[in-house]
Amino acid sequence: MNKILVANRGEIALRIMRSAREMGIKTVAVYSEADRESLHVRYADEAVFIGPSPSSQSYLLGDKIIEACKITAAEAIHPGYGFLSENAAFARSVKASGLILIGPTPKAMEIMGNKLSAKAAALKYNIPMVPGTEEAITDVAEAKRRAMEVGFPILIKAAAGGGGKGMRIVNQAADFEEQMQLAVSEATSAFGDGSVFIERYVSSPRHIEIQVLGDTHGNIVHLFERECSIQRRHQKVIEEAPSSILTDELRQKMGACAVDVARSVDYVGAGTVEFILDENRDFFFLEMNTRLQVEHPVTEMITGLDLVKEQIKIARGEKLSYQQNDLTINGHALELRVYAEDPDNNFLPDIGTLQTYNIPKGNGVRVDDGFEKGMEIPIYYDPMIAKLITYGKNREEAMDRMVRAIDEYDITGIKTTLGFGKFVIQHAAFRSGNFDTHFVGKYFNSDSLKADVEEEALIAAMIAAINFKKRDNLRITQESKSAISNWKRNRAKF
Amino acid sequence: MNKILVANRGEIALRIMRSAREMGIKTVAVYSEADRESLHVRYADEAVFIGPSPSSQSYLLGDKIIEACKITAAEAIHPGYGFLSENAAFARSVKASGLILIGPTPKAMEIMGNKLSAKAAALKYNIPMVPGTEEAITDVAEAKRRAMEVGFPILIKAAAGGGGKGMRIVNQAADFEEQMQLAVSEATSAFGDGSVFIERYVSSPRHIEIQVLGDTHGNIVHLFERECSIQRRHQKVIEEAPSSILTDELRQKMGACAVDVARSVDYVGAGTVEFILDENRDFFFLEMNTRLQVEHPVTEMITGLDLVKEQIKIARGEKLSYQQNDLTINGHALELRVYAEDPDNNFLPDIGTLQTYNIPKGNGVRVDDGFEKGMEIPIYYDPMIAKLITYGKNREEAMDRMVRAIDEYDITGIKTTLGFGKFVIQHAAFRSGNFDTHFVGKYFNSDSLKADVEEEALIAAMIAAINFKKRDNLRITQESKSAISNWKRNRAKF
Repeated sequence: MNKILVANRGEIALRIMRSAREMGIKTVAVYSEADRESLHVRYADEAVFIGPSPSSQSYLLGDKIIEACKITAAEAIHPGYGFLSENAAFARSVKASGLILIGPTPKAMEIMGNKLSAKAAALKYNIPMVPGTEEAITDVAEAKRRAMEVGFPILIKAAAGGGGKGMRIVNQAADFEEQMQLAVSEATSAFGDGSVFIERYVSSPRHIEIQVLGDTHGNIVHLFERECSIQRRHQKVIEEAPSSILTDELRQKMGACAVDVARSVDYVGAGTVEFILDENRDFFFLEMNTRLQVEHPVTEMITGLDLVKEQIKIARGEKLSYQQNDLTINGHALELRVYAEDPDNNFLPDIGTLQTYNIPKGNGVRVDDGFEKGMEIPIYYDPMIAKLITYGKNREEAMDRMVRAIDEYDITGIKTTLGFGKFVIQHAAFRSGNFDTHFVGKYFNSDSLKADVEEEALIAAMIAAINFKKRDNLRITQESKSAISNWKRNRAKF
Repeated sequence: MNKILVANRGEIALRIMRSAREMGIKTVAVYSEADRESLHVRYADEAVFIGPSPSSQSYLLGDKIIEACKITAAEAIHPGYGFLSENAAFARSVKASGLILIGPTPKAMEIMGNKLSAKAAALKYNIPMVPGTEEAITDVAEAKRRAMEVGFPILIKAAAGGGGKGMRIVNQAADFEEQMQLAVSEATSAFGDGSVFIERYVSSPRHIEIQVLGDTHGNIVHLFERECSIQRRHQKVIEEAPSSILTDELRQKMGACAVDVARSVDYVGAGTVEFILDENRDFFFLEMNTRLQVEHPVTEMITGLDLVKEQIKIARGEKLSYQQNDLTINGHALELRVYAEDPDNNFLPDIGTLQTYNIPKGNGVRVDDGFEKGMEIPIYYDPMIAKLITYGKNREEAMDRMVRAIDEYDITGIKTTLGFGKFVIQHAAFRSGNFDTHFVGKYFNSDSLKADVEEEALIAAMIAAINFKKRDNLRITQESKSAISNWKRNRAKF
């Protein structure tokens, strides 16, 4: 494999190209109108323009991408995440064009892309699922019988619903009939379909996912877990590996389950099996993502493996060069997704130019980004500026390093989630490891950052004053810095 | 320990402050006139001006530094490397002022600071030394007797000489008398002292050093070796850990020896025991450096320990939190010292402004630097711009990553040793691990980089042309990049 086309943009395109370059493989970028000056275009050995800015007219056009391969004689395509990465039809076209897709088979994508077929595949291996009805029902007596089997609390959800609509939590058997009847009539009037699903309600869920790798020779291993419980609007914002809550025994059990899920579709390449973990540390299969995940770097940090290189080697037909027993966890890693969003304004995307952009450096800090000073965040794509990854000997060091790195990350011109990330990492619940996916809703509101913002404004003013005076009085730097320092210390008491 | 003053500048000052910050410790910078706008001043919580640019009027003035501690209420001083870091008199003043020096005892500095007392201390533990005369002699017959014992080849060096002056290599016994007489008369006329030392000549030496850590409770461990055989003008330029030539057995043996050397002076803190390794893999003690080394990051990468944090913990009186058996090597790390020097002009320091300064990023790349775009390299200090460190699962990956990172490092306005570094890393002798301290003299001359320089100029011109045309013709980027790519490929054949 001499040349790979990367069918993506931003940080993940750069990240893939770096690994390819280290393997001596040439790279081809594709780009839309908005990405004309983007770093991934500059980094690639060649670049092909594929259309207007909206992704539906560029990055999502499989034919254009295959055509770009022909023009440049690229032999393989790495789809990154998002865009065409889990599109089985695209995967088939790539193969039909005589090219290699660096990813799983179209069949595996298809089965895992549909919740019902995914569950059906996983059931062959006795993978635990959230207990409940497999089919939608309307009969109250039958529903209650199932609810008693499953155990309370119970979640009743409309089969035709979505986004939380028509959902009811029932805490005890005595309330069931009434709530069920309400749910059915609500669903009937809202969706014209009164049928519902019944399942165990996990009140304090943690999101644990297992990274797997399969080669074309039938070998499948897992690379341990990532915990992604810190989410807002069902979007992951902070991920870590390993999880602070898993025991070695549970890790092995979940890992073996993930390998089984992968085996159920003869999985080839890098994939992720997502589980929900409840208060009793029982886990249930959610879904499988048949691509590289945004949060894959934390796994790279603790295993020492380069996941993109592994993907490329697998696509070249190589055998995995290790077995499950060769793999160990070394240290702890955290990832914060740095978004161009305004935490004071309900995390709405913020638009503007990166007037200042200085990344944190030093031991154990990795920044995967696709921007530099002076660039604009395009409105057409995901507003993620960077992934800030820290690694430490243990979880405490990774957290301390993350706080240091956030403080050192200097971005102006655009509002970011850096302050929000610091709030989470410094929060007692996060530090102790005692949290679940409700963390943000439970602890965070826009006032949480107010003190920090006011403080920063004041410090900025002080520093401006210091710089102005510095030339006249050499000692002012030290004195004023002390003043700021004292002020910060006192401020922290409130 | 709430506040530490860092008595240094540049990358090492920043590197120390980052670790302190992660530990929740406040930092104080000191700065000379030339460093008024330096990054370490901005990074610190407080900064104290200590004098004019020449280090003899600022960074080397112990009294000024102790005074800066008093002004800022800093409780401890980290001296970094160079400057006052191995100055026993300064260490005594610090202690006398009621402050803590983050480093070894003045006595250990003193003993190890002198070759004769260092050797005398090490001899108590039967540490192997390069065989030869312990005292200078003039008697030819006696000298020959010693030479026969030591074995040929033999190095005769003037006791009063230095820098290679008055040195002679004798390959066989038959030549000894003649060469010895020549050496004595040469030394007499050159230095007015005809006495010489006789020692085994190591014709293909490798520089191997062992990192040690000792706490105040008498525990001493070693953190394995670093190999620093790639040197020019006796200055290390590329370092790595582990060494490509050490067996586990030899590693243990040298490690145990290094711990003994440290124990001979009741060593406290971080130190490095340097050895020379000959063609038969026999090793001999050279000297001990009683400070943090420039190349300490490669040890951090393979052990997962933060050496500055370890130093601080030791200075706080804490016990080492691990024993020798807990420590293992994980992966491989390389460090390239990036100097503002002109390889075409005998590596003379290059002066100017960093017109472009973009550092490499991504998995396994660490850049310890003290500069940003627009800054000037001060002429007063060491012209090192940065330390480029790469880490990989194994030596091959670390090397591939280093080449990728060098290619990605974008510096204009100043000539650097990046191209020289790439030459070394890509050289067959380096890649195979079959090299010694003569590498640079044996393989490198300024023509080695000529092709690369010409190529880069041509590519720069092409890219300028492309950028100019890009707006008119969208496909030009791809086409011209292909052209460059082809040109590069063809160019490589010559």
